[in-house]
Amino acid sequence: MPKLWDQTIEGHRQSVRNAILDTTAALVAEHGLLSVTMSRIAEGAGVGRATLYKYFPDVEAVLLAWHERQIAGHLAHLSAVGDQVDDPTRRLEAVLTAFGAVAHETHRHHGSELAAVLHRDPRVARAQRHLHDMVRDLLVDASATGDIRDDVVPDELASYCLHALAAAATLPSGAAVRRLVEVTLDGLRPPR
Amino acid sequence: MPKLWDQTIEGHRQSVRNAILDTTAALVAEHGLLSVTMSRIAEGAGVGRATLYKYFPDVEAVLLAWHERQIAGHLAHLSAVGDQVDDPTRRLEAVLTAFGAVAHETHRHHGSELAAVLHRDPRVARAQRHLHDMVRDLLVDASATGDIRDDVVPDELASYCLHALAAAATLPSGAAVRRLVEVTLDGLRPPR
Repeated sequence: MPKLWDQTIEGHRQSVRNAILDTTAALVAEHGLLSVTMSRIAEGAGVGRATLYKYFPDVEAVLLAWHERQIAGHLAHLSAVGDQVDDPTRRLEAVLTAFGAVAHETHRHHGSELAAVLHRDPRVARAQRHLHDMVRDLLVDASATGDIRDDVVPDELASYCLHALAAAATLPSGAAVRRLVEVTLDGLRPPR
Repeated sequence: MPKLWDQTIEGHRQSVRNAILDTTAALVAEHGLLSVTMSRIAEGAGVGRATLYKYFPDVEAVLLAWHERQIAGHLAHLSAVGDQVDDPTRRLEAVLTAFGAVAHETHRHHGSELAAVLHRDPRVARAQRHLHDMVRDLLVDASATGDIRDDVVPDELASYCLHALAAAATLPSGAAVRRLVEVTLDGLRPPR
């Protein structure tokens, strides 16, 4: 098969897959997790049921694939935010601020029943490790400037940061999230 | 029925109930959640199966009752720790230190499958609110001394504290937990 044709097929597959995931996310947001069926997904995505089953065996598989795409998107976003800042301390602050905003936003979209399905997925644990390592590396870079405490190892500080910022999910406003980021950053500074 | 007789029956019921809960906790810890059956619980607690079913309809009900007892115990412990300290800032520090230790310990006992069963229980959400309110009140008392930042409301600081200290569950040692408590407390101090 010529290469161009191959790419066209792959591009088509990706766009069908994305349409399925987008539809599913919209159905969950609008009608709740329990109302989502393979028939409704097929209808919303504009594909036949037989086609849908060629992509995913069941609703849970669609949800997990959607969640994987979300997580990859968040990680890429945080990484891109970091890449825009030269100074290591400012870079850490920018990424933690972006993470607080993501934690705040995603919680509004997820219901707790959805979270219960998704958080058993081993890919979530992998993504959390990836995020942990990203923040730890930022802490290592920033601690060289003397702006970050050196009496606690970066691994432990990364756990502290990510757990503290998860509180963003419980906060009512973006302003409250920005205050949380400030408080969390103050815990990272060298002790007085 | 005479009152003394009534108390004896109630005391007996409590001790059977406690034996059931203790046995179940031990079975989960030793053999894992999925191996626990009503027959094994009855055998371990030294009661007949018919008696066990008079107390609890199924394994999940036993686990939820056990968890409720654990939570009540933790809250009473944190409250007692606070009662032993007069100075409001020291009191806050003592309670947060104790909470870090509880978060560290309980995670070692719970498997993630057990957590998935228990955390859907509305009593967990209630206990978390209770804990949140306890910490918020401690923050209000401590902020009157000027040791605690006043640019963020106590409710938001309480969310920060409890989320940050939940990182204790991921830490390898008691020493690491004490460092986490220090870092978390540093975030609470007035900004420089």
